[in-house]
Amino acid sequence: MTIDWNVERIAIVGVGLIGGSLARALKAACAVTEVIGIGRNEPNLRRAVELGVIDRFATDVEAGVDGADIVVIATPVGAMQELCGRIAPVLGRDSVVTDVGSVKRAPVEAARAAFGDNFTRFVPGHPVAGTEKSGVEASFAELYRQRTVILTPDPETDPAAVQRITDMWYTTGARVTTMTFGDHDRILATTSHLPHMLAFALVDFVASSNDADAHFELAAGGFYDFTRIASSDPVMWRDISLANADELGAKLRQFADHLQKVTRAVEDGDGAWLQRAFGNARRARTDALVQRERCDSKK
Amino acid sequence: MTIDWNVERIAIVGVGLIGGSLARALKAACAVTEVIGIGRNEPNLRRAVELGVIDRFATDVEAGVDGADIVVIATPVGAMQELCGRIAPVLGRDSVVTDVGSVKRAPVEAARAAFGDNFTRFVPGHPVAGTEKSGVEASFAELYRQRTVILTPDPETDPAAVQRITDMWYTTGARVTTMTFGDHDRILATTSHLPHMLAFALVDFVASSNDADAHFELAAGGFYDFTRIASSDPVMWRDISLANADELGAKLRQFADHLQKVTRAVEDGDGAWLQRAFGNARRARTDALVQRERCDSKK
Repeated sequence: MTIDWNVERIAIVGVGLIGGSLARALKAACAVTEVIGIGRNEPNLRRAVELGVIDRFATDVEAGVDGADIVVIATPVGAMQELCGRIAPVLGRDSVVTDVGSVKRAPVEAARAAFGDNFTRFVPGHPVAGTEKSGVEASFAELYRQRTVILTPDPETDPAAVQRITDMWYTTGARVTTMTFGDHDRILATTSHLPHMLAFALVDFVASSNDADAHFELAAGGFYDFTRIASSDPVMWRDISLANADELGAKLRQFADHLQKVTRAVEDGDGAWLQRAFGNARRARTDALVQRERCDSKK
Repeated sequence: MTIDWNVERIAIVGVGLIGGSLARALKAACAVTEVIGIGRNEPNLRRAVELGVIDRFATDVEAGVDGADIVVIATPVGAMQELCGRIAPVLGRDSVVTDVGSVKRAPVEAARAAFGDNFTRFVPGHPVAGTEKSGVEASFAELYRQRTVILTPDPETDPAAVQRITDMWYTTGARVTTMTFGDHDRILATTSHLPHMLAFALVDFVASSNDADAHFELAAGGFYDFTRIASSDPVMWRDISLANADELGAKLRQFADHLQKVTRAVEDGDGAWLQRAFGNARRARTDALVQRERCDSKK
């Protein structure tokens, strides 16, 4: 932890699950004096004030970010370009901007185009956390505890800006790691974006069957766990899919090849192959979970 | 509920998660006088006695089923044929046999071949319940509470035998429904077997990537929920895949076509299509869950 955390005011654009939970965590830690919520949906913002998630709100982006030490863009990724364009002209000289998008190339490009020389003060970020719920009502202060936040600073990014955003996330109980946006988008395409596509596609597949009701009725709990992520916000996922189309498309095709092998083993009755593949998967998942718990207990 | 539940002794072949949980539930409800566990793994059976799951055990199938009012075959499906062949000659004249397999055509065929005239006393069953764990240590009496048990009796099956097995499952807190084995294997191929293949394939896909460790490390909680079912028993799932190969192979191919459409929409940047598909999936899943909870609260 550094000692010069000197942040009075944070502006959060988009007060939903992610932005709202960040606001709650910062307030719970008494880390900021004022949180300003920015959005287009005034009733939602009023509700956020009522819930104590934010202190006040603005529906005008330019007014809302004025005087903020940190501006957090927590909207679906598709809104980044427009928002960066509106924030750039009014950005305070010591302000740092960050985002929370599940893809990183597109926000970086939007920020570079909009901020010009001030691009050094944009710190691309992605808290790898969430639930299938959305909206400020679903937000809670503990969402980021022991979760990983990935920052993907550019070589040009000001180290002090990175430090400020790192400290912000430490305050929420998260761990912070850095990598290139290319590595981020490639890895997350596999571990997050692909599973979401599979879950969406499976539910859609079941829903489009002739006797969908009977199918859903006979589905075991495992089916509902498996498809929990299919209840995530459709607009957010549309934007992620579009923004990471190259990596995600490639992973979808590679996974389809992989599934084709499973399909052939099933059709060929190749029990030895199937048992080995299932055993490998079980072992890999168990090992990863053991590793994960070991890390958690070290915190 | 009928009033002539007159069962003293139950023999359970295979004392793992499923068989052990059934034994625990029946004992918790004081529904039987004696539960005999049958298996090949003597230390496991001894442990089951220590845990109070079963009263005594036999490693010899023929000896174990002697005098049992109900014989429950709770082994992986691949063992059905051999077990039916061994049980048939020693089956008591009032005994009823059932199984718990996740596929139903194969057990029905095995039983028909083995039992001859006594096939009328075989009641094919499938409790749609489980966890990713296996073994008697993981068993618990509440596993079947508010879960669905599907029975797939043949037109020849003795209605009194069906009633006895229905009552057995009612005792565990389950609901019981009946259908043909064809419908069962077709529906479960979609709602259970396909998701398991996807989960196994996804974990295997991640594990086979160049930097698998980094992938697992950066996977969010959603990934581990999503792949929970990939930790299920490999032998059990090998047997299910082989026994339902026709239906499962067909569903895998249909799903691959479905996924292909998602892939094209991603690659073509068709945001409207993606948002609609994601929205449909979210709605279908939410509606199914609401329906499910409504049913649960009626119990």
